[in-house]
Amino acid sequence: MTKELSQIIAQIEPVDPAWLARAQERLDSLTKPPGSLGRLEELAARYVAIRQDPWPELQRKWVVVFAADHGVVAEGVSAFRQDVTFQMVYNFLHGGAGINVLARHAQARVEVVDIGVNHDFAEAPELISRKVAYGSRNMAREPAMTREEALRALLVGVERSEAAVAAGVDLIAAGDMGIGNTTPASALASVFSGRPVSAVTGRGTGIEDKVWQHKVAVINRAIILHRPDPSDPLGALAAVGGLEIAGIAGLILGCAAARRPLLLDGFIASAGALVAAALAPAATDYLIAAHRSVEPGHQTVLNCLKLNPLLHLNMRLGEGTGAALGMLLVEAGLKIYREMATFAEAGVSEKEG
Amino acid sequence: MTKELSQIIAQIEPVDPAWLARAQERLDSLTKPPGSLGRLEELAARYVAIRQDPWPELQRKWVVVFAADHGVVAEGVSAFRQDVTFQMVYNFLHGGAGINVLARHAQARVEVVDIGVNHDFAEAPELISRKVAYGSRNMAREPAMTREEALRALLVGVERSEAAVAAGVDLIAAGDMGIGNTTPASALASVFSGRPVSAVTGRGTGIEDKVWQHKVAVINRAIILHRPDPSDPLGALAAVGGLEIAGIAGLILGCAAARRPLLLDGFIASAGALVAAALAPAATDYLIAAHRSVEPGHQTVLNCLKLNPLLHLNMRLGEGTGAALGMLLVEAGLKIYREMATFAEAGVSEKEG
Repeated sequence: MTKELSQIIAQIEPVDPAWLARAQERLDSLTKPPGSLGRLEELAARYVAIRQDPWPELQRKWVVVFAADHGVVAEGVSAFRQDVTFQMVYNFLHGGAGINVLARHAQARVEVVDIGVNHDFAEAPELISRKVAYGSRNMAREPAMTREEALRALLVGVERSEAAVAAGVDLIAAGDMGIGNTTPASALASVFSGRPVSAVTGRGTGIEDKVWQHKVAVINRAIILHRPDPSDPLGALAAVGGLEIAGIAGLILGCAAARRPLLLDGFIASAGALVAAALAPAATDYLIAAHRSVEPGHQTVLNCLKLNPLLHLNMRLGEGTGAALGMLLVEAGLKIYREMATFAEAGVSEKEG
Repeated sequence: MTKELSQIIAQIEPVDPAWLARAQERLDSLTKPPGSLGRLEELAARYVAIRQDPWPELQRKWVVVFAADHGVVAEGVSAFRQDVTFQMVYNFLHGGAGINVLARHAQARVEVVDIGVNHDFAEAPELISRKVAYGSRNMAREPAMTREEALRALLVGVERSEAAVAAGVDLIAAGDMGIGNTTPASALASVFSGRPVSAVTGRGTGIEDKVWQHKVAVINRAIILHRPDPSDPLGALAAVGGLEIAGIAGLILGCAAARRPLLLDGFIASAGALVAAALAPAATDYLIAAHRSVEPGHQTVLNCLKLNPLLHLNMRLGEGTGAALGMLLVEAGLKIYREMATFAEAGVSEKEG
C-alpha cells in the first residue's frame, strides 16, 4: 500500500454517536410524533453526524460514474457487446441515459470518469479522462489487473472525491458503467462474503439460464486460478475486480476521509464498498445504501456491509440511477430537520403523559 | 346514493391495458436493458395509461389534506389531545408541518380542507372551508356520522378533485389530519377486510400497551353496536368512519372519474380507498400506494386494494407525507419515459440474441 492510500485510510474515523443523538434531539422537538418520519429522520441524523455540523447545507450534489471495460466478456458472460460501454459513455455525455434523467431530477451533476474504457474519447466537458488501462484483463485466464493498476484506479477514485470536496459538493453518489461488470462484482461478493458464487451471481443485463450457468463457471474458474484472499483487499480487487469497481472503492475512502456522505448505487457500487470496507471498516459509517437491486448477490453484500437499503424498486440498471433517487430521500430528511417547526414555534401541544 | 355520486361512479372505467402496453413499448426502446428500471417503468406506464396520452405532462401537483376531529377521542384512544388537530391546521397554513416541507421538496401545493375540525378558523388562502360538522360523533356510543353527513363529506372530496382538475393539476395526493383517526381507520379496515380488530389496530401516534388494548375494545364495541356492512359502504363509513376519511374517498372517486392518478398516503388515506373501492372497484386502477406505514393494519388494507406500496421507510405521520415522497418517484418514472434517449437516437447497440 502506498503512503498516499494509507494516509487516506488513517483519516477515516467512525461517525460519532454523540452527533447522532444531538440531531435526534432536534428531530424529536419537531411537530410530529417522535420517530414518526422513520428513515427520513435516520438520514437526517446521519447527515448531520457525518458533517459534524448542527445546521449543515445540502446544496451541491454529484454523481460520479466510473466507466471501464472487462476482459472477461471474451468468455461470453454478458447479453450486450463490449462496444456498448463506450457507446453509453457518449450517451452520458449527451444527457440521454437513465442516470442523466434521474440526476437532473435530483438536481445533481453527472461526472463521467473514463477509468478504463476500451476506446479513445474526444475531450468533453463532463468527461474526466483517467484511463488506467483499455479495460481489465480476462480474469478467467490471468489477473484482471496488476496490483499497481488496481492501486492507481483506487487513487483515481480518491482524487475524484477530493475534486468534489474542493468544489463544495455536499452529497456524492457512486455509479458505474461497464459491460460485463456484474461478473467481477459477483466474484468479489463471493470472496468477501464467503458465499458460493452461484448464490451471488445474477442475470446482469438479462442473460438466459445457460449463459448464467456459464457465468458462474467462469467466476469459479477465476477464483480457483487466483485464490483471492479477503484479508488482502487490494490483491483480491486486482485478481477478480474491475477498474470502475476500484475507482468506486477509492471514491468511498476519499469521501469517508473528508466526511462526506456517499450514496451507494446497486450491486457494482456495493462491490466497491466491500473493498473499501475491507481496507477501512469505519468507511461504512459514511455510506447510505440507496436501493436494493434485483441482482441476487446485492442483499448478501449489503448484509456484509451492515447497510439497510432505502428503496426496493426492482431496479438493476446501475449507472448510479438508484443512488440519484436516494439523493432525493436524503434531501427530504435534511429538509425535515431544517425546515419543520418545533412544537414550541408552532404552538402545538406535545404528546400527553 | 344521490344522483351526483352515482354519476361520478358511473364515469369510472378500468385502465385500458392497451395503453399500458403502448407505454411499455416506448420504455423498451430506451437505452437500458428491458425492464431494468423496475417500478419506475411501471409508474410511467400507469401514468400514461391513466391519462390516455402518449406524451403526458406532469407539471402541477397538489396534496389535498382533509382535517377533521373524532368524537371517539372521548374514549381516550389517542396519545395527543383533540386540540392538536386545529393547532396542526394552523401549522399547515404557516408552512411548518412535515407535509409542507415534503410538498415543497416535491414542488407540490398543499391545500388544507377543513371538513370537520372542532374549531372555527379565520379565513386563509390555503384553507378550504367545507365543514360538514364540528367533528364526528363517538362511534362507541352512536354512529360517527349520519348517512347524510357521510355523503356530504364524500361529495366535498369529489368537489376538491374537480377543483384540482379545473386548475390543471396532473397528480394529486391525499393526506389527512385528525387526532384519533387511526381508530376509525382500523374499524373500517376490519369491516372491509374481515380481519379481527386486534390484527389491524396499531399504536397511532404512540400509545402504550394498555391504551392499545382499550382502543381495540372501543373499536370492537362500536362494531358490535352498529354492525357495519361492507356491502353498504356508505353505511359503514357513516357508522365507524370519519369525515376526513369520507373526503379522501370522494377525492379518489373524483380523480378516477377524471382520469387523474392519485397517490395514497398511509393508513388513513388507504381506509378512504377501501370505501372508494367498495363503491367503485375500478377506482383502484387510478391509485398509487406511495408507502407502507408502520401501522400494522396498513398492509392488510393494501392487500385488499391489491396495491403494492412504493416506499418502506417506517413512516407513520400521515398528513400526506408519504404521498409527497411518492410524487418524486412518479415524476422520476415519467421523466425516464419522456427524456431518455432510445437505442436508435443514441447509437447504442441493443441486446444480442
